Amino acid sequence: MSNPPAAATPPTSADVARLAGVSRATVSFVLNDTAGGRVGEQTRQRVRAAAAELGYVPHAAARSLRAGRTGVVLLGGSSAPIGPLFSEFYRELQGALRRRGYTSVLYGPSPGEGDEPARAWAELRPAAVLCLEPVLTPAGVDLLHRSGTRAVFTLGTAPVAGAHALIMDQREVGAAAGAHLLATGRRRLGVVIPADPGLDQFSAPRLAGLRAAAASALAGPVETLPLDFTEASGAAAAARCRDLGLDGVFGYNDEYAMLLLRSLQDLGLDVPARVALVGADDLLLGRLLRPRLSTVHMTLPGGESLATLIDEIIADPTTTPATRNLLTVRLIPRDSS
Amino acid sequence: MSNPPAAATPPTSADVARLAGVSRATVSFVLNDTAGGRVGEQTRQRVRAAAAELGYVPHAAARSLRAGRTGVVLLGGSSAPIGPLFSEFYRELQGALRRRGYTSVLYGPSPGEGDEPARAWAELRPAAVLCLEPVLTPAGVDLLHRSGTRAVFTLGTAPVAGAHALIMDQREVGAAAGAHLLATGRRRLGVVIPADPGLDQFSAPRLAGLRAAAASALAGPVETLPLDFTEASGAAAAARCRDLGLDGVFGYNDEYAMLLLRSLQDLGLDVPARVALVGADDLLLGRLLRPRLSTVHMTLPGGESLATLIDEIIADPTTTPATRNLLTVRLIPRDSS
Repeated sequence: MSNPPAAATPPTSADVARLAGVSRATVSFVLNDTAGGRVGEQTRQRVRAAAAELGYVPHAAARSLRAGRTGVVLLGGSSAPIGPLFSEFYRELQGALRRRGYTSVLYGPSPGEGDEPARAWAELRPAAVLCLEPVLTPAGVDLLHRSGTRAVFTLGTAPVAGAHALIMDQREVGAAAGAHLLATGRRRLGVVIPADPGLDQFSAPRLAGLRAAAASALAGPVETLPLDFTEASGAAAAARCRDLGLDGVFGYNDEYAMLLLRSLQDLGLDVPARVALVGADDLLLGRLLRPRLSTVHMTLPGGESLATLIDEIIADPTTTPATRNLLTVRLIPRDSS
Repeated sequence: MSNPPAAATPPTSADVARLAGVSRATVSFVLNDTAGGRVGEQTRQRVRAAAAELGYVPHAAARSLRAGRTGVVLLGGSSAPIGPLFSEFYRELQGALRRRGYTSVLYGPSPGEGDEPARAWAELRPAAVLCLEPVLTPAGVDLLHRSGTRAVFTLGTAPVAGAHALIMDQREVGAAAGAHLLATGRRRLGVVIPADPGLDQFSAPRLAGLRAAAASALAGPVETLPLDFTEASGAAAAARCRDLGLDGVFGYNDEYAMLLLRSLQDLGLDVPARVALVGADDLLLGRLLRPRLSTVHMTLPGGESLATLIDEIIADPTTTPATRNLLTVRLIPRDSS
């Protein structure tokens, strides 16, 4: 049973050097693995044994003071619920960064407004920042660069001046759903809009993409169906579908579509005979529903290619910021449309 | 449009001191907010203006070298899929820690085996570590303490020597489901075991809890139903239910239960007449199914109380490690059982 920590100061590299009978520089060479062939194997072993005995590990902060930055890649978190597609993408990315020697940390919900998030992140002196939400302003990007962050990426729906932009164009999701509903003869279209404000950044461009598809097909106006994730709200949205005489609905994603499907069925509106319904995300649950749910399948690139890009831009931070599209979409027709 | 970062060194506090015409100590006092009443408002403004002009922000690492630790609370991440209950708990905790002046970072999947995760985390000199998975060994706890981490918490199903244990006793989840199935007259019980190895830490104690409930009711042996999250696997599990003559199944959670429900129905086995089914998590989707899914509802405490505890133990790291139970469970009977 180990004890709670004593009030004593933690061991330093000087303590390790004393115990091993070597210089502090040698301790640093060995433990930070920067020695090349300069330190013999016996000395290495002595240093490692001394460090283990004292419980000393190198301090990332000390390295970062020397280098002006850490090996940290900071992932600026989101306050929005994140789906399985995205969780998997982040998990892969974190693994790929670790294999390249970086420590990736997720910062969690963004603190404050304006350039406050960038200021809070800069205090950790990350080598790179990848920010999920549209919380980075051009001033924030500038502040990160000036305080030593070498690579700043935004991940979202629109580029931010000064940063490398990784775009997931959510309009494509709405456009794919709309094109399918229109191609199968639906003309009175509706789009589910989640009440959760954290989802605006996704729902607004999905609506815009579907509206553009409807406009180019000369279909009527596209109605919105506000929906919070409760059964009562589902019943209200289903009644609105009926009252507006809608014949095709894009349900925002599979989970909201599932809620609307149940509510439409409880109201006696047949899906797809009366209303065609399309979700997004291609979750397994869509295949478990009756009728099976049509959906927009989305793919993001593997973590390896993005980790390579981050690594390259850390190595050469003068690379001109560019915009890259990450998202590809594909409609999967099933029995609900 | 801001430019990519120049190759020039980032500004230092010495640059800020020079521009503001004050000492470096004054810059540190003002920007780290440690001055108390010692620095006048005019000087403060001058320092802040100089910092803004140069793009300087304080370096958390420099503070941490002086203090021997950062204000970082490191949340050792999990490689297992995390449900909505847990995401919400972490989000609240991160907000509550920030309001207390801590920077919380999620470390992502645990690197390596043995004491490697602890070693990697220690390099960031966190003030506290809260580790989700059972990846911390007693040696790892010891290493964290000796390298200066003041508070080490594990969050899981069993305590680890030397650390404060936050227990989510998953046996209670299985016990609640089992007690309900037995009380409603079911005797041939089965438990879904997800194939995902990341879920073993939850599924094994849930199975044990249900087995204990069955043993104390003198029911027959409890069968296991391996299930990966595919329709083919669902069909196989449903066939196994039929062949074994099971009359009550705990579906691990609502999503796995939903998959099994569909598969049982496709096979013509009526739920609940032939097989009663109970999920866990109390997701909305359970209420959308027909029959509505019975479930085990779980609650975790709010983030505030845990953040207060972490703060107290950072302040007094000699506090004797204790075990605290976080999870409370409650069975919600609906139409599937």
